[in-house]
Amino acid sequence: MKYELSPSILAADFNRLGEQIKKVEEAGTRWLHFDVMDGIFVPSISFGMPVLASLKKETSLFMDVHLMITDPGRYVDTFMNNGADMLTVHAEACTHLDRTIAQIKEAGCRAGVALNPATPVSVLEHVLDTVDMVLIMTVNPGFGGQKYIPYCTRKVAVLRNEFDRRGLDTDIQVDGGITTDTLPEVLKAGANIFVAGSAVFKGDITKNAKELLELMEHEA
Amino acid sequence: MKYELSPSILAADFNRLGEQIKKVEEAGTRWLHFDVMDGIFVPSISFGMPVLASLKKETSLFMDVHLMITDPGRYVDTFMNNGADMLTVHAEACTHLDRTIAQIKEAGCRAGVALNPATPVSVLEHVLDTVDMVLIMTVNPGFGGQKYIPYCTRKVAVLRNEFDRRGLDTDIQVDGGITTDTLPEVLKAGANIFVAGSAVFKGDITKNAKELLELMEHEA
Amino acid sequence: MKYELSPSILAADFNRLGEQIKKVEEAGTRWLHFDVMDGIFVPSISFGMPVLASLKKETSLFMDVHLMITDPGRYVDTFMNNGADMLTVHAEACTHLDRTIAQIKEAGCRAGVALNPATPVSVLEHVLDTVDMVLIMTVNPGFGGQKYIPYCTRKVAVLRNEFDRRGLDTDIQVDGGITTDTLPEVLKAGANIFVAGSAVFKGDITKNAKELLELMEHEA
Amino acid sequence: MKYELSPSILAADFNRLGEQIKKVEEAGTRWLHFDVMDGIFVPSISFGMPVLASLKKETSLFMDVHLMITDPGRYVDTFMNNGADMLTVHAEACTHLDRTIAQIKEAGCRAGVALNPATPVSVLEHVLDTVDMVLIMTVNPGFGGQKYIPYCTRKVAVLRNEFDRRGLDTDIQVDGGITTDTLPEVLKAGANIFVAGSAVFKGDITKNAKELLELMEHEA
Amino acid sequence: MKYELSPSILAADFNRLGEQIKKVEEAGTRWLHFDVMDGIFVPSISFGMPVLASLKKETSLFMDVHLMITDPGRYVDTFMNNGADMLTVHAEACTHLDRTIAQIKEAGCRAGVALNPATPVSVLEHVLDTVDMVLIMTVNPGFGGQKYIPYCTRKVAVLRNEFDRRGLDTDIQVDGGITTDTLPEVLKAGANIFVAGSAVFKGDITKNAKELLELMEHEA
Amino acid sequence: MKYELSPSILAADFNRLGEQIKKVEEAGTRWLHFDVMDGIFVPSISFGMPVLASLKKETSLFMDVHLMITDPGRYVDTFMNNGADMLTVHAEACTHLDRTIAQIKEAGCRAGVALNPATPVSVLEHVLDTVDMVLIMTVNPGFGGQKYIPYCTRKVAVLRNEFDRRGLDTDIQVDGGITTDTLPEVLKAGANIFVAGSAVFKGDITKNAKELLELMEHEA
Repeated sequence: MKYELSPSILAADFNRLGEQIKKVEEAGTRWLHFDVMDGIFVPSISFGMPVLASLKKETSLFMDVHLMITDPGRYVDTFMNNGADMLTVHAEACTHLDRTIAQIKEAGCRAGVALNPATPVSVLEHVLDTVDMVLIMTVNPGFGGQKYIPYCTRKVAVLRNEFDRRGLDTDIQVDGGITTDTLPEVLKAGANIFVAGSAVFKGDITKNAKELLELMEHEA
Repeated sequence: MKYELSPSILAADFNRLGEQIKKVEEAGTRWLHFDVMDGIFVPSISFGMPVLASLKKETSLFMDVHLMITDPGRYVDTFMNNGADMLTVHAEACTHLDRTIAQIKEAGCRAGVALNPATPVSVLEHVLDTVDMVLIMTVNPGFGGQKYIPYCTRKVAVLRNEFDRRGLDTDIQVDGGITTDTLPEVLKAGANIFVAGSAVFKGDITKNAKELLELMEHEA
Repeated sequence: MKYELSPSILAADFNRLGEQIKKVEEAGTRWLHFDVMDGIFVPSISFGMPVLASLKKETSLFMDVHLMITDPGRYVDTFMNNGADMLTVHAEACTHLDRTIAQIKEAGCRAGVALNPATPVSVLEHVLDTVDMVLIMTVNPGFGGQKYIPYCTRKVAVLRNEFDRRGLDTDIQVDGGITTDTLPEVLKAGANIFVAGSAVFKGDITKNAKELLELMEHEA
Repeated sequence: MKYELSPSILAADFNRLGEQIKKVEEAGTRWLHFDVMDGIFVPSISFGMPVLASLKKETSLFMDVHLMITDPGRYVDTFMNNGADMLTVHAEACTHLDRTIAQIKEAGCRAGVALNPATPVSVLEHVLDTVDMVLIMTVNPGFGGQKYIPYCTRKVAVLRNEFDRRGLDTDIQVDGGITTDTLPEVLKAGANIFVAGSAVFKGDITKNAKELLELMEHEA
Repeated sequence: MKYELSPSILAADFNRLGEQIKKVEEAGTRWLHFDVMDGIFVPSISFGMPVLASLKKETSLFMDVHLMITDPGRYVDTFMNNGADMLTVHAEACTHLDRTIAQIKEAGCRAGVALNPATPVSVLEHVLDTVDMVLIMTVNPGFGGQKYIPYCTRKVAVLRNEFDRRGLDTDIQVDGGITTDTLPEVLKAGANIFVAGSAVFKGDITKNAKELLELMEHEA
Repeated sequence: MKYELSPSILAADFNRLGEQIKKVEEAGTRWLHFDVMDGIFVPSISFGMPVLASLKKETSLFMDVHLMITDPGRYVDTFMNNGADMLTVHAEACTHLDRTIAQIKEAGCRAGVALNPATPVSVLEHVLDTVDMVLIMTVNPGFGGQKYIPYCTRKVAVLRNEFDRRGLDTDIQVDGGITTDTLPEVLKAGANIFVAGSAVFKGDITKNAKELLELMEHEA
């Protein structure tokens, strides 16, 4: 199993994104989490295409794009053209989930599916074999800086168990309230891709990222 | 009549926004245009609350926030709390336009109303006395780098004429395709606040901003 | 020209609606204003079909039903079956306004069209000959107890003038902030149906209604 | 286990709500069911904020507010400010169900979740530990006077079993077609809060309420 | 001025569309009106892409496609790829009308804009110079077989007058209730493209089409 | 178990629908599949009421109408009045699925429920006893000519197993990529009603239909 830290720029300083991203890259991360919010699917508007296109020009981090937007199929092509390496869509936002996953994969991008805290893993029953990653939201999406919801640990464990049962080593990502305190528990439950926003970008970015990376590698 | 250049960060480099904003500020601009797009009202998602909050911490430019979002009344308070000095909403997006304008002004923010190219000025007949600014879109909103639509010059002239008739010197902003080529014509027609994106941020920002500012002051 | 006071039960005591309605009836009013809000077209939910059906059983007041709901054509038949004598729909809520008016009239009900404060009278240009009443909102709809918006007086005057020009004596209703202070001005401008909520139901209902009725008849 | 009758005013006489509510209170009920319908989530508009605020002033019954409205998070705060003691939202109407439940509880109100007849109990898997009540609709919401859907009894039994398995004695409410005929069966299946509309308010309210209360206590 | 009859297949026999279209073609018509309805913008679903693609293979009539659909920009490209020669969109359905018109024209298709009966011609003020045709609906769209709305004649006259004033000979199409009775009046008012459904396809198609064509040419 | 081929006219030649339908009828089919698409629930607009009404006049095939439309309850009555013998609605499109099924059945029509590929069968848990048919989509709905999705075979098997467990012999329909290659496998899994579009209407219709019918009967 491969482990990755995916720092979320939602908590970064937008005056100097390039510089901050360089820091997480130098600290040893390989992924970058890009949280797109439209103010409809979630109650905030974060950033989208023009920001992604700018960042892509100067970083070689793997662009892990999380679409918290309604009917994401509308913009899948645009986000891929602007630099996404992985596109994660919400099951709650897709009427034709199988089609949207296929659309992402046919374009040569990796496809993820995200679940809100209250959404059961069983809604993904038929697409678990086709996705590259499942994102278990560990807070309600829309804002940075929220507290990890404890019952989500069990969702991760149930999902990892199901992947094992199917003989799959598909990635499980967690997003929301991931810190040095919560990472070990959720890693043990089966998550292997860790989104961290405030825990990376508030304070000393290099130190934060290194601590999380070391903890992640130690616990793995 | 006061004249302002309002550089739109839609065309900026998001790796180094702070640095680029400092350049336009040092070149002599007093306003900054912040284009919020939600992927519903317009076919792109740009940026929103967290970006605004970051920028506000390091610049003292007047934050001229243009909401290209559906039903903007939902987020008027949030944008004001995150640093907007002026909030401009689209007439096409507001069922209760008088209320949204009042809501913005009661909170101590300046209120603007924007019109898409095809929308007649007459839809604003009853609110012209209550707004601080009217934004005449001179391209269809959604993307940077588009060409100025020539028939919009006449809309500006008709609106300036109407403000004069009412004894008002309300600001008229234009946004879309504003360059050293188009600025003189639309200034002469009656516009006094000029949004410029690519014309400022593509190439030498300082030089671009100064040229536009000088042209603006020369033509005024 | 016939003049009517149409007390709005939005401001009534819902513990004893029947009793309060009886009071306004005994005071001499002939109309009752029934404000339907759906929480979508306006930001509040008031009351609808079951309340109308109950009231209709015990009062013979003319039921003047104002639909502040999205796409009102969906419920026009239901409201007529529950006792509406007049149905007023918002121009801002109807894509097929001519059809909705025709639908109301074909069912033997009187048809009104309402305009929000910011909406120009000119949007009704083609249907002015077919409606029984135009409702000029004098506050932004959604709540009781708001202050009259002064610029609406001119809208009433413009509309009365247009009706006169066409040789029509169609009813003009005003709704929002109508009190003994504002009624004379707006009556003089051309309104002849006066909705009053708080001004009738807060305090001594009988006295309030009588004062407004007398003022209305005196000014007429 | 505590048992409650929650008379639904949807079937009451809106000419004299206060008087009718007093009757159910004197008959011994402690709860009152307040059915909010918006004409979007369900095909009827019932009543909302102003009616709730009126009733709350004169009764001390526990206000059990059932929001049959789309995206109920928009109005959770408003209903609490107008007097709700419990707020029940539909799982089918909430994209962020965990957040909406948390929002209700953080404000000091009790939180319920409702399920339409066809919706499986399993959609609530992750939130069963956090809610104060689950409402199993035993008719399709939207109208009073419908017949109890027999297959819903099994849903109640499955849910009570699941609560037992988790060591929880969370309330299960049933709403739709509850009469002296159907109450015993559904109580035995595990329901403990009984909404009754027509069965209470059609005919002799005092007698109806007492019969239902006695039956409920006898069967409990 | 060029005059055209554009028979609407909405009233045709869908068992033998090809045969019926051949008849109108042999009778001398050059255009065919293709009414797309989506059940959202109008209260019926008619036909769309696969039907258009079939017909296009066997007829050389000018395909005059009328999109009675919400947000038509979504499908403009698809309809052009399936054989539309002209695409007409509703002003009431387009937030970005100038963009949608430009999108149609850039693809080499002719662009029309339609207005519902109640919509004033003035909403098109800024785009009259850019469109190839304006369609004045003379019934409320959604169904065939309705009666011509008399007030629409004046809209046609006003629009023709405005085109004349601008030195334009842009096409004006009328659709709804066009028969041998109504055609002369609306032609005289300034319309030059006549949609006819029942008047062509009910009864003897060849005879109907010829009569209308002859009347059209006689009155022209 | 009864087996049926239900040829989908989505792939037919719309110049000569009547003639083509006659061919499938003469080949021995008893059902006809009518695919209604609205451009909202699925990304294409196919055909609706007027086409159904035309076909019904000349064929006695059982009209198996599949509503790929949003909120299908709006048009259930209209489709029944235009000739539907069975109406199938999507679970993903119905907030009140139990009500919509009941509405169809009360009108004397047969009721089906369809599931998109990614949607688990378990969402139908409570309505399996009340429907006449379940349609398992074996491609993502919206277009003809797509390839069968292999994992759907297991969905059919799971559903047939569940019907057996309940002692029901309810019809299971499959739609998408059904050809002589895929039919045997999915029939064996438990499907008994086979929609086929291109496999019937591309090439020699009579031959195609007969081959599929024979294969179906042979495998049954």
